[in-house]
Amino acid sequence: MIFEKITSKGIASNSYFVASKGEAFVVDPRRDIDVYLALLQENDAKLVAIFDTHRNEDFVNGSPELANSTGAIIYHGNKLAFKYGTSVKEGDVFKIGDMNINILETPGHTPESISIIIKNSAHPDYPFMVFTGDTLFAGDVGRIDFYRNTKKQLEAAGWLHDSLFNKLLKLGDHTIVLPAHGEGSICGGGISGIPFTTIGYEKKTNPKLLLSKEEFISFKSTEKFEIAPHMTVLEKFNLEGPPILAGLIQPPSLSVKEVKQFIAQGAQIIDVREPESFAGGHIPNTISIWKNGLPTYALWLLSYDKPIVLIKSTHQDIEQSVRYLIRLGFDNIIGYLRGFREWYMNGEEISKTDIWSVHELYRNIDYDNIFILDVRTSRSIADSGKIKGSHHVFLGELSQRLAEIPMDKKICVYCDSGFKAKAGASMLIKNGYKNVASVFGSMTAWKNAGYPIE
Amino acid sequence: MIFEKITSKGIASNSYFVASKGEAFVVDPRRDIDVYLALLQENDAKLVAIFDTHRNEDFVNGSPELANSTGAIIYHGNKLAFKYGTSVKEGDVFKIGDMNINILETPGHTPESISIIIKNSAHPDYPFMVFTGDTLFAGDVGRIDFYRNTKKQLEAAGWLHDSLFNKLLKLGDHTIVLPAHGEGSICGGGISGIPFTTIGYEKKTNPKLLLSKEEFISFKSTEKFEIAPHMTVLEKFNLEGPPILAGLIQPPSLSVKEVKQFIAQGAQIIDVREPESFAGGHIPNTISIWKNGLPTYALWLLSYDKPIVLIKSTHQDIEQSVRYLIRLGFDNIIGYLRGFREWYMNGEEISKTDIWSVHELYRNIDYDNIFILDVRTSRSIADSGKIKGSHHVFLGELSQRLAEIPMDKKICVYCDSGFKAKAGASMLIKNGYKNVASVFGSMTAWKNAGYPIE
Amino acid sequence: MIFEKITSKGIASNSYFVASKGEAFVVDPRRDIDVYLALLQENDAKLVAIFDTHRNEDFVNGSPELANSTGAIIYHGNKLAFKYGTSVKEGDVFKIGDMNINILETPGHTPESISIIIKNSAHPDYPFMVFTGDTLFAGDVGRIDFYRNTKKQLEAAGWLHDSLFNKLLKLGDHTIVLPAHGEGSICGGGISGIPFTTIGYEKKTNPKLLLSKEEFISFKSTEKFEIAPHMTVLEKFNLEGPPILAGLIQPPSLSVKEVKQFIAQGAQIIDVREPESFAGGHIPNTISIWKNGLPTYALWLLSYDKPIVLIKSTHQDIEQSVRYLIRLGFDNIIGYLRGFREWYMNGEEISKTDIWSVHELYRNIDYDNIFILDVRTSRSIADSGKIKGSHHVFLGELSQRLAEIPMDKKICVYCDSGFKAKAGASMLIKNGYKNVASVFGSMTAWKNAGYPIE
Amino acid sequence: MIFEKITSKGIASNSYFVASKGEAFVVDPRRDIDVYLALLQENDAKLVAIFDTHRNEDFVNGSPELANSTGAIIYHGNKLAFKYGTSVKEGDVFKIGDMNINILETPGHTPESISIIIKNSAHPDYPFMVFTGDTLFAGDVGRIDFYRNTKKQLEAAGWLHDSLFNKLLKLGDHTIVLPAHGEGSICGGGISGIPFTTIGYEKKTNPKLLLSKEEFISFKSTEKFEIAPHMTVLEKFNLEGPPILAGLIQPPSLSVKEVKQFIAQGAQIIDVREPESFAGGHIPNTISIWKNGLPTYALWLLSYDKPIVLIKSTHQDIEQSVRYLIRLGFDNIIGYLRGFREWYMNGEEISKTDIWSVHELYRNIDYDNIFILDVRTSRSIADSGKIKGSHHVFLGELSQRLAEIPMDKKICVYCDSGFKAKAGASMLIKNGYKNVASVFGSMTAWKNAGYPIE
Repeated sequence: MIFEKITSKGIASNSYFVASKGEAFVVDPRRDIDVYLALLQENDAKLVAIFDTHRNEDFVNGSPELANSTGAIIYHGNKLAFKYGTSVKEGDVFKIGDMNINILETPGHTPESISIIIKNSAHPDYPFMVFTGDTLFAGDVGRIDFYRNTKKQLEAAGWLHDSLFNKLLKLGDHTIVLPAHGEGSICGGGISGIPFTTIGYEKKTNPKLLLSKEEFISFKSTEKFEIAPHMTVLEKFNLEGPPILAGLIQPPSLSVKEVKQFIAQGAQIIDVREPESFAGGHIPNTISIWKNGLPTYALWLLSYDKPIVLIKSTHQDIEQSVRYLIRLGFDNIIGYLRGFREWYMNGEEISKTDIWSVHELYRNIDYDNIFILDVRTSRSIADSGKIKGSHHVFLGELSQRLAEIPMDKKICVYCDSGFKAKAGASMLIKNGYKNVASVFGSMTAWKNAGYPIE
Repeated sequence: MIFEKITSKGIASNSYFVASKGEAFVVDPRRDIDVYLALLQENDAKLVAIFDTHRNEDFVNGSPELANSTGAIIYHGNKLAFKYGTSVKEGDVFKIGDMNINILETPGHTPESISIIIKNSAHPDYPFMVFTGDTLFAGDVGRIDFYRNTKKQLEAAGWLHDSLFNKLLKLGDHTIVLPAHGEGSICGGGISGIPFTTIGYEKKTNPKLLLSKEEFISFKSTEKFEIAPHMTVLEKFNLEGPPILAGLIQPPSLSVKEVKQFIAQGAQIIDVREPESFAGGHIPNTISIWKNGLPTYALWLLSYDKPIVLIKSTHQDIEQSVRYLIRLGFDNIIGYLRGFREWYMNGEEISKTDIWSVHELYRNIDYDNIFILDVRTSRSIADSGKIKGSHHVFLGELSQRLAEIPMDKKICVYCDSGFKAKAGASMLIKNGYKNVASVFGSMTAWKNAGYPIE
Repeated sequence: MIFEKITSKGIASNSYFVASKGEAFVVDPRRDIDVYLALLQENDAKLVAIFDTHRNEDFVNGSPELANSTGAIIYHGNKLAFKYGTSVKEGDVFKIGDMNINILETPGHTPESISIIIKNSAHPDYPFMVFTGDTLFAGDVGRIDFYRNTKKQLEAAGWLHDSLFNKLLKLGDHTIVLPAHGEGSICGGGISGIPFTTIGYEKKTNPKLLLSKEEFISFKSTEKFEIAPHMTVLEKFNLEGPPILAGLIQPPSLSVKEVKQFIAQGAQIIDVREPESFAGGHIPNTISIWKNGLPTYALWLLSYDKPIVLIKSTHQDIEQSVRYLIRLGFDNIIGYLRGFREWYMNGEEISKTDIWSVHELYRNIDYDNIFILDVRTSRSIADSGKIKGSHHVFLGELSQRLAEIPMDKKICVYCDSGFKAKAGASMLIKNGYKNVASVFGSMTAWKNAGYPIE
Repeated sequence: MIFEKITSKGIASNSYFVASKGEAFVVDPRRDIDVYLALLQENDAKLVAIFDTHRNEDFVNGSPELANSTGAIIYHGNKLAFKYGTSVKEGDVFKIGDMNINILETPGHTPESISIIIKNSAHPDYPFMVFTGDTLFAGDVGRIDFYRNTKKQLEAAGWLHDSLFNKLLKLGDHTIVLPAHGEGSICGGGISGIPFTTIGYEKKTNPKLLLSKEEFISFKSTEKFEIAPHMTVLEKFNLEGPPILAGLIQPPSLSVKEVKQFIAQGAQIIDVREPESFAGGHIPNTISIWKNGLPTYALWLLSYDKPIVLIKSTHQDIEQSVRYLIRLGFDNIIGYLRGFREWYMNGEEISKTDIWSVHELYRNIDYDNIFILDVRTSRSIADSGKIKGSHHVFLGELSQRLAEIPMDKKICVYCDSGFKAKAGASMLIKNGYKNVASVFGSMTAWKNAGYPIE
């Protein structure tokens, strides 16, 4: 049995490739499918099934792309009217190589969520591994606030409890659990950083599984997180089937002149370099989203309607950024500047934004003319506390809530580690704020430096 | 200036990637274009032009594929009514990065052949490099027998002489010559194995350039080589534009059962392993074409009408074989057997064919019941001589000339080195011959062993 | 937490790389350590510890090599007088990144065997993963016949039972089990092909764990397998520390002339191509060991005293063969023939050996002049049965037991799938047997073809 | 014939790999020899000779490293008492594969310089390619000021003229010229950016070859460039043979704590990120040398006596930086910080330095309190002019000439494109200057913006 976990950084999304005796299946593939095609070739295997544990809302489903390239059949749950693929139901059995594959319906996170059990055909009585999708994670359970409906959420809390306690936990302590997300996903903030887990380990250590049924339902039915506005776009893609790319997009390099033309035409110019590079110098009025922030924040900060131009550091940045963007359905990437160097060599205007160390912030904090802006998620503030006197506007909502931020003060933006802060700072400057700094290391460095938290 | 020669093995076809200051052009691209896309990314360059030196007849033009992926414009000669791209004429000038690009019309091999000159813009009076297509090679000049018309060929000999002596040789001894083919190409049998050459070196060492005008025209106007039947298919592809693949084909691995079904349905089963592997054991009634023989012999031995199944040794064989086949327009590759091992492990029937050493051949040569079959090209026989008593049928014509080969004798097939011989042997067996061997090393080994040549 | 399992094919040996917060450790590294160095670089991690679960006897310990390159400390059990590294004892604790590492002494397979437990520092009460070395595998437990001493083996059976039942199984059903070997290892013939397992899954499915204490001790104390003669060399290497290579050996390519000289000087010429390639043609009197057979059979068939020359198919074969050989301490690889093609092109003599299909064997089986030789392990025969009338001599003992094999009959060699059979056939021919064939697919194909088994 | 040019970026140094019929030679290898070993394997070739065109003074000779790994013989000129290798003399001939190799003594750049001619054995009368070392470049000829002795330099000018006009140019216009350096090398400032050249093309376009003998000797005998202080170290290495590395150094990643310890112990902390990243934030009192500046400026700015710690952006930076450093003999690289992010996340102090756009510089240029510092080479100033009122101190001499730079003014550092300027700025700050900025794009951007030059 060949087993590979393929993790998509940023959204911390896991897909899985499993093969036995020349037959393979994939669970929850991403849209840049070259990794699966390479595994098929290396292992001389034929793809016979693609399982979607549920309709994902945080990335574009890669199953149609993979099915288009391989002819494999897509299987998903039956409680949603997908416009592609084939529905399965509880108790369905597949025989792939030496493995028996059993389907378990595990609604909660979504109504059509399924879990997929592998049993070794030599020991058909004992579940060996289970792909739990967004139902059970290492250290957490799935979000159910995407229903955006209090009553529905209450109902879903019951489903989720049933799926967990009456189905998954009953597979036995020995069963290896393979969830659709790892640490850092927006689909469950408490996910731990371990690579695999087991039913037994979760029963002992997962705080949600230690709650009574009443506590569990009460907690989950009222839990609320930020929901990116574009998730509805992804939900539509994944219900109806996204456009087929048939290969990775390779945007052309652009000259300074071309970039200036695209700026004039309203393109979104996204600078994917590190915050300190952006701080040191950048094209005026561009948005900073560090490369590994794209998987999470492109959904909040980019528009599907305007073409995208990338500003990069190394040429590897482009391929990675393109992967991140197409996983979210941002396919309209019209090119990238050959290098920021081209820009300044050409004698063009440069902007700079300051980044304060936490010590600078601390030394300046009591000044009347400093407005301290916290752009983290509510959950992060709840978990880690905040700097006294700071004002909270989540990065994803910043462009809608500019009225709350004074034009006449120095704005000092912080977040968890300084990356989102730089993105926020770039958005403020693009909107006319003159005096903006972000904070190196932000709350993490602040704590490590021993400064007070509220 | 960034310069890369990309050689396609087998057809010994050269394409070129040249970039300067963020702008690039490609000459005579192949159809699997990933190599050019990677060079563009690595060098942060934008493709601004694709030059076709002429309508190739030995591979599918990759220009439409590359234009489709990059938006670059295809340029070619104006003496042929191409259904794609843009025509250029003598004296046309392009400015790409620091380079001045000049067009020279050099008819002969084909009427619309062009050569492309690079001059460094700092020294605009001196040609620096010239891409000569199939007009001038290292050690040879282009074939003109593709006209298949004696009168036309005579006329073309004159054009070619003019293109060479009045145009290319006048660029100056110092000019670096970059032809469309290297050693081993069917487009010029006398091509030498040096990686680059110059006008001056060719003037001194190329035997065709040492002929008088009369000798040259007489020689070239009567020269004839084998012409693969499918070259007309390639000519049509390259006139009208081949189908766009948008990515490399990745055929699925097949089970023994599936391969047996495809055999039953009449698929072409091609064994791309080395001759000695095929000899040791193979699927009955399959054709042996060693992997690196595909670029040359697929055109002679395969049909465009039937699907292709590959039998491989390592999994790298598949990618390479697919590249070779799509370069020739054989896009209908339906899969590959996971490994010959799968076949025999399954308890299936096996065939074997003997390979004789040259010593075995020598020891057995006088026997009345041995029919010695030479499957080389006429040119190869003319250049190297043959084994006494051998009968000549070129491999590419074997299936049409089976009547010349006796059914009741042992057939011993030889060629230049034993690979084409094994292909021929496999075809004879498929056609019912029972007692067939090929020869290890064939004429090369025969000579090295010191045996007599006629 | 970053977790990678690195499997060494052939010996089916697992090593593990684990990193957290910039600190890493490795368990049971192999001798070609580039894979670990690359992981360290990719993850910006510093190697702080190397754990040897025990003194391996089936490959050369890579820990000294890795320590030499990185400065990391080697830790191993304290019941053996290693000449390198540092001893640990039950209860020792390491803090690496976010992980608590605990040592468990688990003697049995060897007296100094240890298991290494990872606990997540957030849940220090619950073992998360355990590296079990050769104590517990998926589906089997460790060999204890290496003691080569009945009384010692009885004692070790008691230790092993205690290590398993009183230590490892008590870690809890939920604990993920990471053994030093997977399916195909000689260290435990019943190891299953699943990629990971858990304590709970083993308790339910591992046949050895379902035995009573008495049954267990009786079974294990009398179990006996083939022991390669060179294992004592490996044991010595691993006790004293093997030579440091400081980089992968890159043997030079050799001309035909050089290979002939090395043959004359008594070098071991090893043909690593597939059996059917060897059958189709090979250098006379060379030994066939297919590439992926080297990890297991080099120990039986090669000598440490004579230099090794490799005959390969592709150039990738050389790197892989070198890795396999140095993992076993065969460092004296003086070169490889550029290609078998070079040999026959040069007009040299060729040998061939036949491979029968199972159908040919079946059709010929009753002939008086056929001697059917089975070269499998005793275990394989016990598990799968044998062909009626066959004589058993294990491949590893063949050269010592030639007297049992008649010179005047056709010898037909079979094994599990035909690879060991070809190795055996090549040894017979080297020893003067004239009429030898192996069998394609051997017992596997024989069964699949439906022929009778005894 | 297989031909590969291997260019080492930064020093713009060319080495060459040539193979024919299984035999190969290398010219002027670099010290990280993996590229040659890979070419040998890919081409199944045996290295039979390594030619050193001369004792290089700008990088550590890789020949001893390559000879150590392959057993090949090193050949060099006979006018210097090398402590390794074998001397050759004019007229020596080697037969390698199909090639005749002829030695030409071409003193000038150094007394023992040789050129190596390839002739195709089919055309032994005509030189095909010539490796000219530092004697003849595309567009320039070798430096002869390394003699550091006026009389010697006059004599060498005569040698060089003779080597060029009486030897190399007589090989014929058609001969392909393969020099040891390309554009950007310090060994010849006028080298053009073309990938290859020919004798004929140089005769027409190389300004030094258009001079009369008198002009040539007068010009060359008085020419002077900057000479890095450490070149004597390299000369000694290359005379006596440098230490053997036996594999690429892989420095460990370091924690913030370890880096702070190394700072305290006086290690050289080198920040290899881009200038704008350094500007945005860096560890206080570290030196900025952008990665691709290491090959040229490490010799000027680093000491051989103190260990080196690297501060990087991506993990690829480390491998590349290590290659650059070992090529110059800086082998004492004790580690690298996991990432600048680690530093600020830890709450450590941060420094920042401003980079002005050329517009900022222009707007501020007349202020009394701005000191404009030009850190370019004299040659660069001679070629491109300078900004009015600027003071010139070449970067390599900056630390010796700090007295010329006022402490009480704003220092604005510029160079050709802003990279050396940032290195200079970092050195000033380390020496106590408080108010320092560099200039984005420097002279290049200044010109492109249309500002006046003096």
